[in-house]
Amino acid sequence: MEQRISMVTLGVTDLARSRSFYEQIGWRPSGDSTEDVAFFQVGGLVLGLWGREDLAADSGVADSGGWGGVTLAHNVRTTGEVDVVLAAAGRAGGEVVREPAETFWGGYSGVFVDPDGHPWEVAYNPGWELTEDGSVRLPE
Amino acid sequence: MEQRISMVTLGVTDLARSRSFYEQIGWRPSGDSTEDVAFFQVGGLVLGLWGREDLAADSGVADSGGWGGVTLAHNVRTTGEVDVVLAAAGRAGGEVVREPAETFWGGYSGVFVDPDGHPWEVAYNPGWELTEDGSVRLPE
Repeated sequence: MEQRISMVTLGVTDLARSRSFYEQIGWRPSGDSTEDVAFFQVGGLVLGLWGREDLAADSGVADSGGWGGVTLAHNVRTTGEVDVVLAAAGRAGGEVVREPAETFWGGYSGVFVDPDGHPWEVAYNPGWELTEDGSVRLPE
Repeated sequence: MEQRISMVTLGVTDLARSRSFYEQIGWRPSGDSTEDVAFFQVGGLVLGLWGREDLAADSGVADSGGWGGVTLAHNVRTTGEVDVVLAAAGRAGGEVVREPAETFWGGYSGVFVDPDGHPWEVAYNPGWELTEDGSVRLPE
């Protein structure tokens, strides 16, 4: 199995609301999106939004109804950007569940949850440089 | 907020077991990994494995204990590769929860869950070409 992720799909209860949230934070859906699903190009992979019931059935799993052990992160280049992105997410209808602050691993971050409760850490990590296109490159 | 994901962190209950699973399917952790966390370079982002309790606390969310509305996908270039990857995941200690078959969207896929129940759809999608480096590129 090659070392990559092709898509991250987030289950949602109201696609229009979720799509609008991601559009309000500045993202643009692909023309491949339909009435039932929204796709966003995120680097070399795709973020999908799809009805949570459909996603659970399609994934062969039972839905717990809450958070299930997956957190996304969005890294930025400065601590100031962390504050700006979290504020924008709050204005767009997200909820800031951890205010931005210094972290135990030497960085600076906060967390918002999207309208369906999916958490995004917004982080400045001085040990992980971002390339020009926003990619993260770990040491070998 | 720029349109990207920097990291996907999966909460795990036994890091050694989970790390071993991903190593057995052919992945190589970064030298940045520690006793408490494993990092894998996956394209321009990072897959992290971290204790689920720590991740829930860090993310400002309550843990449902089950699946929480997030499914990952790994796209491949042929239907045969779907079968091969699912079989390898099964041998490594994953569970195939949807056997590979034609899908309603015109592709071919199946789903395995990793040792912590995180689902991965392994998919051949004739409408989404993979670039040489494995990236997916959606239409604008």
